[in-house]
Amino acid sequence: MKLGKVPNARFKIAFVSFVMSSLCLVIWQSHFCNAIAETLPVTAAVDSVSRELTQIVEKQSASWNRGDIAEFMVPYWNDDRLTFSSSGKTKRGWQATYENYKNNYPDLETMGKLTFSELETHELGPDAILMLGTWHLERTSLIGGNFSLVWKRIVGKWLIVHDHSSAVQP
Amino acid sequence: MKLGKVPNARFKIAFVSFVMSSLCLVIWQSHFCNAIAETLPVTAAVDSVSRELTQIVEKQSASWNRGDIAEFMVPYWNDDRLTFSSSGKTKRGWQATYENYKNNYPDLETMGKLTFSELETHELGPDAILMLGTWHLERTSLIGGNFSLVWKRIVGKWLIVHDHSSAVQP
Repeated sequence: MKLGKVPNARFKIAFVSFVMSSLCLVIWQSHFCNAIAETLPVTAAVDSVSRELTQIVEKQSASWNRGDIAEFMVPYWNDDRLTFSSSGKTKRGWQATYENYKNNYPDLETMGKLTFSELETHELGPDAILMLGTWHLERTSLIGGNFSLVWKRIVGKWLIVHDHSSAVQP
Repeated sequence: MKLGKVPNARFKIAFVSFVMSSLCLVIWQSHFCNAIAETLPVTAAVDSVSRELTQIVEKQSASWNRGDIAEFMVPYWNDDRLTFSSSGKTKRGWQATYENYKNNYPDLETMGKLTFSELETHELGPDAILMLGTWHLERTSLIGGNFSLVWKRIVGKWLIVHDHSSAVQP
């Protein structure tokens, strides 16, 4: 019996230690992952996202200045739920927004030279950013205003889901 | 040796099974928690938040119509980082926003009767909501427009951190 007792005791110790370690692993994994999500990588991620969105917006103005409205529209959510507010009214859907741009800016002369500036990003959650900025359009006369873009990361891609733009009154 | 071999094999089996089960527990716990977070409670919470924010906004218009701008300002984030965009420009800070309202609407006559309508809320994350809506101000003539409010839950309280409002051009 003595010979049998020693491995049996080892078995019990092993049983208890592995139950304890599996519990610890679950608790540790949960807290560790939450801790990661709540601290360092978020700040780093926001800086990285901010740079990414700034680059997208700069690429947009370059597309506009080449007269390529379709390319300019790429960062807008290609969905009927896209909302675009300006002059007190809200338009809905990617297609309507695209057609509106094409009708209001039929050629390079009306499109002018677009620049964005004073860009700032504010984190709204792990997958949402508010971007504020100003726009300037240089054609026969200079017009300008500001915008508020709401970006969402949809299936891993950052897209503008809402745009509210205003023009400075002459 | 034979007597000793059997518990040793049991010990090995126990070892492997507990390592496996602890790994399974970690994976299951991670996926299960994510699945919970992504489905049911979010939808329920959004409906509840939507009702809460709608009530806040309705209370705001009631405050306005009593001539109480200070009360109207309560849902705005009392912070220098509050941003208020309109007419192509962005004002910053609660105090500046409050003073701007007081200067532009010095009495009940200029304040008129304010109503909000077509309110809709869009979830941006666990603690952020985009609210779209229209506003109408009835005084000597009827003016109106739309707004985009970005709400954030800060220390458990829903507050407007950004407002972009536009007026329909006469």
